[in-house]
Amino acid sequence: MQVCTIDALLAGGFDGHVECRELLRHGDFGLGTFDRLDGEMVVLDGIVYQIKADGSVTRPDLGLKTPFAAVCRFETTKTLEPDGGIDLKTFEGFLEACIPDRNVFCAIRLDGTFAEMTTRSVPAQDPPYPLLVDVAKKQSVFRFENIRGTIVGFRCPSFVQGINVPGYHLHFISDDRTRGGHILNFRLATGTCRIGLCHRFLLQLPESNRAFQDLDLSKDRSAELQTIER
Amino acid sequence: MQVCTIDALLAGGFDGHVECRELLRHGDFGLGTFDRLDGEMVVLDGIVYQIKADGSVTRPDLGLKTPFAAVCRFETTKTLEPDGGIDLKTFEGFLEACIPDRNVFCAIRLDGTFAEMTTRSVPAQDPPYPLLVDVAKKQSVFRFENIRGTIVGFRCPSFVQGINVPGYHLHFISDDRTRGGHILNFRLATGTCRIGLCHRFLLQLPESNRAFQDLDLSKDRSAELQTIER
Repeated sequence: MQVCTIDALLAGGFDGHVECRELLRHGDFGLGTFDRLDGEMVVLDGIVYQIKADGSVTRPDLGLKTPFAAVCRFETTKTLEPDGGIDLKTFEGFLEACIPDRNVFCAIRLDGTFAEMTTRSVPAQDPPYPLLVDVAKKQSVFRFENIRGTIVGFRCPSFVQGINVPGYHLHFISDDRTRGGHILNFRLATGTCRIGLCHRFLLQLPESNRAFQDLDLSKDRSAELQTIER
Repeated sequence: MQVCTIDALLAGGFDGHVECRELLRHGDFGLGTFDRLDGEMVVLDGIVYQIKADGSVTRPDLGLKTPFAAVCRFETTKTLEPDGGIDLKTFEGFLEACIPDRNVFCAIRLDGTFAEMTTRSVPAQDPPYPLLVDVAKKQSVFRFENIRGTIVGFRCPSFVQGINVPGYHLHFISDDRTRGGHILNFRLATGTCRIGLCHRFLLQLPESNRAFQDLDLSKDRSAELQTIER
């Protein structure tokens, strides 16, 4: 289940409209952001974590709303053992080879130890909201070494362009739940990766939200997406 | 609820994988096609109609599968009285003015009498399947005059490109359920239009269907879509 579209977020649609509580009715695993773009979201084992721009990690009130999130009930289709030493790009190549089903959704969970993990988070914004690409210029970047934790994310098929991130979108949370964020890169020490294929996709759009209806979602924002994802 | 993507259909993914019976669990109103591209589908008041390339209209066995269809539970948000004499293009302009909510899904039902109605249907194909754009070259076109019936269709937001038809996609069935098809144009005599806004969109992708996984859905097929829709 997905709340709103990535292009609405890119266009500055930062007002939350679905409560975290509602997200958890649809899934126990996923990622997103929060009302006013207040940090990165990780949903893991049915718990919502908020990684703020100051690096702090909290479990938000479940009444907090999200403008963009994607969750699923994680069910393992396949278990993989990626080689130690690989970085994000190599990991993606590894998954391409292991999961030929390119036209469905793929939930990705990697529990492991990371020699290096680089993440980012974004600060809460005030209306009138800027474009996400402009917020990302002021993102906080965190670098961790020898950290145990979990990668939580998705590989989406190419046809979700405008709706979600085609390809890989991965967030991270540490085992002790004190660090995390949107993954920019990592170097794996050792870990186990579980993949869950999803053949159903439920999109929930805002109801009675004038700001959403007024967003120009006909524009191709793939270049902006490329900029903020890496 | 939508079965598969329009780009999979454009790419020749004509094998049905969801039964009509299952479609009716998700909605009583909609459109699509059938296994092997065997005609145009109209779902109206909970009944599935099949308009074949020979012009015949039947109620298919509900075990028949579809490779592409979109249905919803029709609930009227707004009732409109379009002017008599308008054609398809003017009707679309009329709806643009009446329904400013461009970023959600819109079910469109127009019950009326049509001075002219032009539709098409497509013949069943055998594997290896051609592209839809090539099948459309051999489509049957039907022209009716002074016909009573119902327009059944959707206006989809721009961000569904690759997944469904951005903009308008309308099918027709006559009151006596003997004629119909995918609408190419019409001239309205008199009618009442009901609009239902939809904020949830459920996409069902094929499970364990190798042919679907092998389709190249990364290609921009919007020009092909433009060709076959009008």
